[in-house]
Amino acid sequence: MDLLKVDTIKEARSKLAACCAGIMPGTEAVGLTEAAGRILAFDIFSKENIPPYRRSIMDGYAVRSKDLGAAGDMIPTSLKVTGEVLLGTDSSKLSVEPGCCVYVPTGGEVPEGADAVVMVEYCEPFGEDMLAVSKSASPGENVVQAGEDIAEGGILLSKGRKLRSQDIGVLAAAGVTAVPVFVPWRVAVISTGDELVSPEETPEPGQIRDINSYTISARSTEEGFTVMRTLSVKDDSEAIAAALETAKDDSDLVVISGGSSQGKKDMTAALIDKAADHGVLTHGIAAKPGKPTITGFDRASKTLFIGLPGHPAAALMVYEQLVISLWRCMTGREPMRTVKARVTVNTPSAPGRKTFQLVKLAGDEAEPVFARSGMISPMSAADGYFIMDENQEGVKAGEAVEVFLWE
Amino acid sequence: MDLLKVDTIKEARSKLAACCAGIMPGTEAVGLTEAAGRILAFDIFSKENIPPYRRSIMDGYAVRSKDLGAAGDMIPTSLKVTGEVLLGTDSSKLSVEPGCCVYVPTGGEVPEGADAVVMVEYCEPFGEDMLAVSKSASPGENVVQAGEDIAEGGILLSKGRKLRSQDIGVLAAAGVTAVPVFVPWRVAVISTGDELVSPEETPEPGQIRDINSYTISARSTEEGFTVMRTLSVKDDSEAIAAALETAKDDSDLVVISGGSSQGKKDMTAALIDKAADHGVLTHGIAAKPGKPTITGFDRASKTLFIGLPGHPAAALMVYEQLVISLWRCMTGREPMRTVKARVTVNTPSAPGRKTFQLVKLAGDEAEPVFARSGMISPMSAADGYFIMDENQEGVKAGEAVEVFLWE
Repeated sequence: MDLLKVDTIKEARSKLAACCAGIMPGTEAVGLTEAAGRILAFDIFSKENIPPYRRSIMDGYAVRSKDLGAAGDMIPTSLKVTGEVLLGTDSSKLSVEPGCCVYVPTGGEVPEGADAVVMVEYCEPFGEDMLAVSKSASPGENVVQAGEDIAEGGILLSKGRKLRSQDIGVLAAAGVTAVPVFVPWRVAVISTGDELVSPEETPEPGQIRDINSYTISARSTEEGFTVMRTLSVKDDSEAIAAALETAKDDSDLVVISGGSSQGKKDMTAALIDKAADHGVLTHGIAAKPGKPTITGFDRASKTLFIGLPGHPAAALMVYEQLVISLWRCMTGREPMRTVKARVTVNTPSAPGRKTFQLVKLAGDEAEPVFARSGMISPMSAADGYFIMDENQEGVKAGEAVEVFLWE
Repeated sequence: MDLLKVDTIKEARSKLAACCAGIMPGTEAVGLTEAAGRILAFDIFSKENIPPYRRSIMDGYAVRSKDLGAAGDMIPTSLKVTGEVLLGTDSSKLSVEPGCCVYVPTGGEVPEGADAVVMVEYCEPFGEDMLAVSKSASPGENVVQAGEDIAEGGILLSKGRKLRSQDIGVLAAAGVTAVPVFVPWRVAVISTGDELVSPEETPEPGQIRDINSYTISARSTEEGFTVMRTLSVKDDSEAIAAALETAKDDSDLVVISGGSSQGKKDMTAALIDKAADHGVLTHGIAAKPGKPTITGFDRASKTLFIGLPGHPAAALMVYEQLVISLWRCMTGREPMRTVKARVTVNTPSAPGRKTFQLVKLAGDEAEPVFARSGMISPMSAADGYFIMDENQEGVKAGEAVEVFLWE
């Protein structure tokens, strides 16, 4: 455990990723109504053509386009109506012979022989079973070909996709009712500190309400993780060590949210080093805010440990940049979404460290929300943050940045 | 019930809004761990100052800035260390006298008398209780004033906000543990059609899998609504009427997803007209796709009815533009998020109707996803859609549009 060298965020991320290289998140099959918001674990291919038959996209008459020639308002073409397609019944025996037509409702199968559908608006029935059509038709008009929407064997949805409502519709259409998704990480959130009281309590002098464990638990749930437990432990190394051991047994990720004083950081690092057989990976990252970040890995139980900084906004940003980005990478998801925006005022950075800057967005403008260390309200006022590079001397007003969105 | 006149989307929305004008969504109090993703029902004010006392943002020594004068590397100032602030204990009796200092960890209370904190890095203990300080300090340096983060009586979070992880942290900090949120709409989704089979089944000729009720249920859940039930009913007016009556009893919103043929649309309209004492409000909207949309309202049970078009993407877009936008408006939320993007190719619109155009986003470019009516895969390929106005003759390549995001 090297206490002196801090890692860049990239180094810290690589070390975590290297430890996770051999561990694929588990997969499970869930029903369609539980699948929204989950991450698809495999590519899904269609086992069928959709539509399975040629389908009309209008209420109209299935015709042979050749029969209509130059039919128009002035010179309608007469066709014989020889049948009607009824939705929900088998129409596969109907066919359209030369000079004939068949009524087809929207969504109905276009009978054999026909190659186009003329909308009812252009059709006028007359006599017993005759139709005057006042419009010509081109081949394929108003007809969706079999497999035109989704071809048999074609890819429906790719691995790593977070399933949206419309994806659920596509899976329903293709008859995929057992959806393979990743089993979410199980997370234990442990906050440590003699000074912490629960939000229900009124802090006595010297006490402070626990904030980070609530923020990090909520962010974990939002990401789809399963929060196993959120607990608060006093600054007692035996009690914390016991909490870490329990968490190792049933969690994939243990988050320790402690104070930011040097003594506490060292205690957290020592406890992670003891609990994790692969030891501490990172002790301090070159980021502002967010320096007092500690990571570790236990090989035997395949558990990741992360000690987050005490600064509430820093804890959240580091959690996103190290942990959530790793989860997204492991599950093949796109990284966190960013939008381009122009910074409204000159914004300084900390030399030699990545600098996280909270911003409020208005259109394509990003207005920095300057927060003194440890302040809470700025993270609620912010719509996201951008990151300045180690070797970047701040950002000038008007410069474009990539803002990580808090939605 | 006027069968001939279609409404613009704006008219349809206004009619629904007028019916809902007297109905405020209910409110309830939930705990912090259940509050994420919910919509805040009232403005929340802080009952306390945060921090409650002057707090140090560094590990360091609380000093009187005047004492340090021009202290520097070359000429350090000597101070007497008269105490130490311990986190989690009452330090309110400590004070810093002229020529003295007190150790304060990050987050600790700055004792009376002191007006700045000097980081430990600039301090060198010597002798029994003396400290050499090699840096001057300006008043307030490294000190967060009481109430500087959140002032007592100040607004913490405004009504209508969808609570994010960081907002949960702010509520925790302020001791707000019973969070007033809106009771979500209860929604019944009824799909109708003899041709519909469930996604588990393999459609026989003339049959098709039910897609829309899965999409709309998933979208409702995503919006935070409570989906009371999703059921499929045959094209039997008595069965549908019975389903509507049941839904009226326990739902705020009844969604009917039926076929798009004229006969079915008329049946749906007649059934809504019968179930809703205020009758059908809108029968057809001037939108492409999405025309066969029907709305209605029942005063007695305060239930909204909406009959959605059969076209899957249209059903979803109409649902968002009419129903979800109404819910967001009623709960004081921001409207759906849009991003500006440039269309990559000339895109035609339907004259006299709002035209919905699906798009795929790449950076700030929006590439139209052209879908033939009723096709399913395009809605999964799309990242969102933009809307062309009734009197707009399409959009030229390179023109900017506002894209409603599907996330």
